[in-house]
Amino acid sequence: MNPFDSCQYPDQETSGMNRAPGSVSIVGAGPGDPGLITVRGRDRLAAAEVVIYDDLAGGVLAAWCPPECQRIYVGKRCGRISALQNRITALMVAEARAGRRVVRLKGGDPFVFGRGGEELAALIRAGIPCEVVPGVTAATAAAAAAGVPLTQRGITSAVVFLTGHESAESPTGPIDWEAYARLGATLCLYMGTSNLGEVARKLTAGGMAAGMPVALVSRASCADQRVRLLRLGDLLRGTFGAFEAPGLAIIGEVARVASAAGELASLAAANA
Amino acid sequence: MNPFDSCQYPDQETSGMNRAPGSVSIVGAGPGDPGLITVRGRDRLAAAEVVIYDDLAGGVLAAWCPPECQRIYVGKRCGRISALQNRITALMVAEARAGRRVVRLKGGDPFVFGRGGEELAALIRAGIPCEVVPGVTAATAAAAAAGVPLTQRGITSAVVFLTGHESAESPTGPIDWEAYARLGATLCLYMGTSNLGEVARKLTAGGMAAGMPVALVSRASCADQRVRLLRLGDLLRGTFGAFEAPGLAIIGEVARVASAAGELASLAAANA
Repeated sequence: MNPFDSCQYPDQETSGMNRAPGSVSIVGAGPGDPGLITVRGRDRLAAAEVVIYDDLAGGVLAAWCPPECQRIYVGKRCGRISALQNRITALMVAEARAGRRVVRLKGGDPFVFGRGGEELAALIRAGIPCEVVPGVTAATAAAAAAGVPLTQRGITSAVVFLTGHESAESPTGPIDWEAYARLGATLCLYMGTSNLGEVARKLTAGGMAAGMPVALVSRASCADQRVRLLRLGDLLRGTFGAFEAPGLAIIGEVARVASAAGELASLAAANA
Repeated sequence: MNPFDSCQYPDQETSGMNRAPGSVSIVGAGPGDPGLITVRGRDRLAAAEVVIYDDLAGGVLAAWCPPECQRIYVGKRCGRISALQNRITALMVAEARAGRRVVRLKGGDPFVFGRGGEELAALIRAGIPCEVVPGVTAATAAAAAAGVPLTQRGITSAVVFLTGHESAESPTGPIDWEAYARLGATLCLYMGTSNLGEVARKLTAGGMAAGMPVALVSRASCADQRVRLLRLGDLLRGTFGAFEAPGLAIIGEVARVASAAGELASLAAANA
């Protein structure tokens, strides 16, 4: 059975033949909390006729997508990423050519580990009117949740976003973790929870101290968000327990400032 | 004359003595376009009694702040950054202690080159209920404007945010540009337009090719946004013309994908 078969398909019957040309908005949904999409992103959802969404964007969809809008799920349950990416592209093009206003809703920001670049390029090749609406990326949402500034005067003036599981894909070879360890920058690891121990070992080999502070944030901005403050040595030893996806690790001296987490959570709850 | 004297001050008369405790929301305004603040950020503005804002947040304020809300400008025209930062902190604490709902509105994301960490720490020390509402940071807004993904399969799986003018402030010493040149990561330079030539020289010394693509984006997301696509060599020679602040440079192989800029601009205009 084709893994895509379990997903929803567009209803071809509703595609009129004499409509105005359609368009695709590639919209960043933000980190998960429906309040953290942009006003424009929410407006695009409210006006959408079709929304093509994946795993990270479900809550945002439930909050802002009108009931008459068609929703097409194309997340991980739909199969292998590479085959899926071609199907998603074909779907967007077909829906737009049928004259529909399409929103491609992606978790976080479309251009930070979101494959938004590939989708945008395909739309442009196909001559579809399109735009990118940026979103709050997971690192800044995690930082806000933990009370950890990503840059701070006197601590660091650089921040790096990395994934822990994409080393084989780059033509420049695997990520040189030892070089990153020496930059003095804040390192934000996206979705790297499965190999945090291995990354910590390489950072240590690059000279990063085992006492380097780390903030682990799982499901940033969601109701079940969790922040844990620990040290690089805890990652080395694997003594940080279970960690629910999507997760983000903020590694750097800035994580010393994270004592604010409790107070932040309380106001957020009071204002919810 | 004290440089702060030209700024607005809070109206002490309106501060009641028997009100509930106030609070401060440190809100990221996003890159400038009022549509690119988050829904929560806009809601906090709509409910604010006092907004303390600076240069980058003016358009957002005009769009979403209710007329009866007091607006206090504390941007660059108010004087030296270090003195100003203490005044801003004192102002936030005083307004919250007077029982008011305060929004501290900051351009971009509060925790990416926004000094939000310092302000948050001061509020927590003072015992003020507070939160951080993240925002769309300039790099992702510039990327969306230029059609340049910050990461892309087969090109790079890392992105770095840096400032071009903060080298003396870090205890780890000046930024090691030559090391950054060798990472194979996308480099996003915030507000670094005054010394792009110097940065380009150091990146070249680190082995980055003069042919490396660069997207220069000024006033990303604003009506007068401008995208220029060039090469590191153009930065070296200074042949890129005037560049209006706030500006952002995206340096890396991903900038080859930027041919999309024209199409993106057209849909954005059609939807405005």
